[in-house]
Amino acid sequence: MSGDSLIDTTPAPPPAGPRARRRAPPGAPARPPRPVRPLDRWLVSLVRKGLGPLPARMVLWDGSVWPLDTEPREPVADLVMRDRRALFGLVRHPSLSFGESYMTGGIEVRGDLLAFLEAVYRRWEHTPYAGRPRKPWKLASGNTVRAARENVHHHYDLGNEFYRLWLDRELLYTCAYYPTPAATLDEAQVEKMEQVCRKLRLRAGERVIEAGCGWGSLALYMARTRGVTVRACNLSREQIRYAQERARAEGLADRVEFVEDDYRNMKGAYDVFVSVGMLEHVGAAHYAALGELIDRCLARERGRGLLHFIGRDRPGELNPWIRKRIFPGAYPPTLREVLASILEPWRFSVLDVENMRLHYARTLGHWRERFEVAASRVAAMFDDNFVRTWRLYLAGSQASFTTGYMQLFQLTFARTGDNDVACTRAELYR
Amino acid sequence: MSGDSLIDTTPAPPPAGPRARRRAPPGAPARPPRPVRPLDRWLVSLVRKGLGPLPARMVLWDGSVWPLDTEPREPVADLVMRDRRALFGLVRHPSLSFGESYMTGGIEVRGDLLAFLEAVYRRWEHTPYAGRPRKPWKLASGNTVRAARENVHHHYDLGNEFYRLWLDRELLYTCAYYPTPAATLDEAQVEKMEQVCRKLRLRAGERVIEAGCGWGSLALYMARTRGVTVRACNLSREQIRYAQERARAEGLADRVEFVEDDYRNMKGAYDVFVSVGMLEHVGAAHYAALGELIDRCLARERGRGLLHFIGRDRPGELNPWIRKRIFPGAYPPTLREVLASILEPWRFSVLDVENMRLHYARTLGHWRERFEVAASRVAAMFDDNFVRTWRLYLAGSQASFTTGYMQLFQLTFARTGDNDVACTRAELYR
Repeated sequence: MSGDSLIDTTPAPPPAGPRARRRAPPGAPARPPRPVRPLDRWLVSLVRKGLGPLPARMVLWDGSVWPLDTEPREPVADLVMRDRRALFGLVRHPSLSFGESYMTGGIEVRGDLLAFLEAVYRRWEHTPYAGRPRKPWKLASGNTVRAARENVHHHYDLGNEFYRLWLDRELLYTCAYYPTPAATLDEAQVEKMEQVCRKLRLRAGERVIEAGCGWGSLALYMARTRGVTVRACNLSREQIRYAQERARAEGLADRVEFVEDDYRNMKGAYDVFVSVGMLEHVGAAHYAALGELIDRCLARERGRGLLHFIGRDRPGELNPWIRKRIFPGAYPPTLREVLASILEPWRFSVLDVENMRLHYARTLGHWRERFEVAASRVAAMFDDNFVRTWRLYLAGSQASFTTGYMQLFQLTFARTGDNDVACTRAELYR
Repeated sequence: MSGDSLIDTTPAPPPAGPRARRRAPPGAPARPPRPVRPLDRWLVSLVRKGLGPLPARMVLWDGSVWPLDTEPREPVADLVMRDRRALFGLVRHPSLSFGESYMTGGIEVRGDLLAFLEAVYRRWEHTPYAGRPRKPWKLASGNTVRAARENVHHHYDLGNEFYRLWLDRELLYTCAYYPTPAATLDEAQVEKMEQVCRKLRLRAGERVIEAGCGWGSLALYMARTRGVTVRACNLSREQIRYAQERARAEGLADRVEFVEDDYRNMKGAYDVFVSVGMLEHVGAAHYAALGELIDRCLARERGRGLLHFIGRDRPGELNPWIRKRIFPGAYPPTLREVLASILEPWRFSVLDVENMRLHYARTLGHWRERFEVAASRVAAMFDDNFVRTWRLYLAGSQASFTTGYMQLFQLTFARTGDNDVACTRAELYR
């Protein structure tokens, strides 16, 4: 069967009004669509070959429709291409260009964006774009203290108002824990904090160090519900100020200290180390330094900790568009990389690992619902490109967790030989 | 402070009658103890330097007592040395010679053997005898199918009657699971099987492959309580015959097939792979083959499995005496080694890891109690050397788990992207 016989040349419905408006610069006269040439057909065939069969159709700028599938199943989405440039990008560097074109409106996805991205992620591993690096340990080696600060600023200093639009009440920007599928986002984020406290078996008076504390909710929760003291660091000025303000308002400022600083600069002696959603920003090249920090900070005898991080089943680069637009310097490690560089060299013992991948998929589903409700307010705060960027990032993240392209590991550890650990895990579920 | 000032030369009580009888060959005239010479004192000082401070005393053959401690704490045991040969062994190759001499009665431990071994294990990591290999992946590379059969025969074909004396009712020779500290050994072994079934979420009609099935209890339990079919392999002829007999007696022979064969020869298509207490006999050099086998045997979509194995926090050789006398060819891996060679290359996703180290310590405590009750019957079956060998092996194993020298990992995995997994782990504890 030749590739061409699969091409459906039925014209797609003409672009709707708002889309046409968005494409044309203000005041420009509407131009008739440029004809599709043999070069474009060849590019379409290359995309189909490169990305493999996908349950979607490509709609070119002249309205012609080109299936990307080889199976007789219903397409989940149409990829509407504005011009050859968008099409050429999918041939040259799809994992970067798809996002770039989606962001600017050069590619529009009509239909089920999530289902389309899930199909892409499932195909991904079978294409040359799987992004498996040759030397994963060299990745994100550039996260110096200064670069790390800029990376954090890029994402987390977008304004608390923006995050308040679609995060939960407590402003937790990490995977929630759903004790039941019916739990709300607010409930699930509180349950996540509770689970972390239970896994760490916090006791009143213990000293906790938290690396990467977001808006401070977990630190405050630990202090409030367990009576511990917490020193929490974060490079985001906006988040730290917010957290400090909250600690004062809740009367916890004497027990929870929020510090605007890099994890590498943390000093002191602690009973517990906790880090929720920071490891993926550290970069594999800096794991040894993180392990050293944890070892240095933790008590010799009962020192213990929890690492909660986005990970992978096999080493692989983060999607280049996500690295460029969303999380510069980020690298999601495998469990093995974390063991090899952070825990083993310092004689930490793994007590428990829980893969919470589907909890993150559910969390992202809730975030996306709320984001879409707030989309026009987000557009007013930033612009349409920003809305599209975040729409793709959130949907792509959800797809990466539903398909297993990404994992979410919650790992607890203790000093080797510490016997003051839970007899069973039943107490986590009481 | 000089080393000699620490030596207490108060004579110890003379050896008791039975011990003296055990030392002398039958019919030989009792010889007066040979004098302790300066060479022996020097050897004692070398032992003290090599093993580091230990809460114990050394009692030489002339009755002189030499503390091994530098701290003012109560000694937990006296090491009674029969002759210079035993003493010299502790200098030359303590990790092997201690066991060899204990086995033959050349060293007698009076006092708390477990507490003494725990002190040794805690010191171990600070001595040159930590046994950290340079190339751990080369270890146990000699476990060919034939060698593996001999290794298994060495330990597991000692006779079912022997194991029946001190194992639980179900003859489970692996770490039990104690839902409460008060659970009996029998209860805890059944609970372990139940936990394995729950973690695997077995469904009626599914096909299970078990590698290393012991006397068949888990395979029968899975078939009986979950309605699955099981193909279980084991290299121990005695165990397989016993298991086959039991399957017939319980009317499960049509659903549980016990095969006397190497895991590498297993064929067929299965939904679930389970291995409890076999991985430590495989040898790191053969993990890739095991990973390949698991991948080949498991269904593409819902294939999943459980690995239950003795592991370590850092790569290290098994104690050479244990390798020589108890488990030839054995190597307890780190979690990282298992991930690197068995799971990552085949795109398996880690769902859950539970460290059950203290459950194994408790299991061994129960085994030891029962073993000591049956010691005279064991001596009648074998001989006194055998009893001492097993006494040391069981106590040493318990000490290795109480001190964290060894870990017990129970790990569940699934195909990457399989979403038919448990929402939470709460169902394990209902």
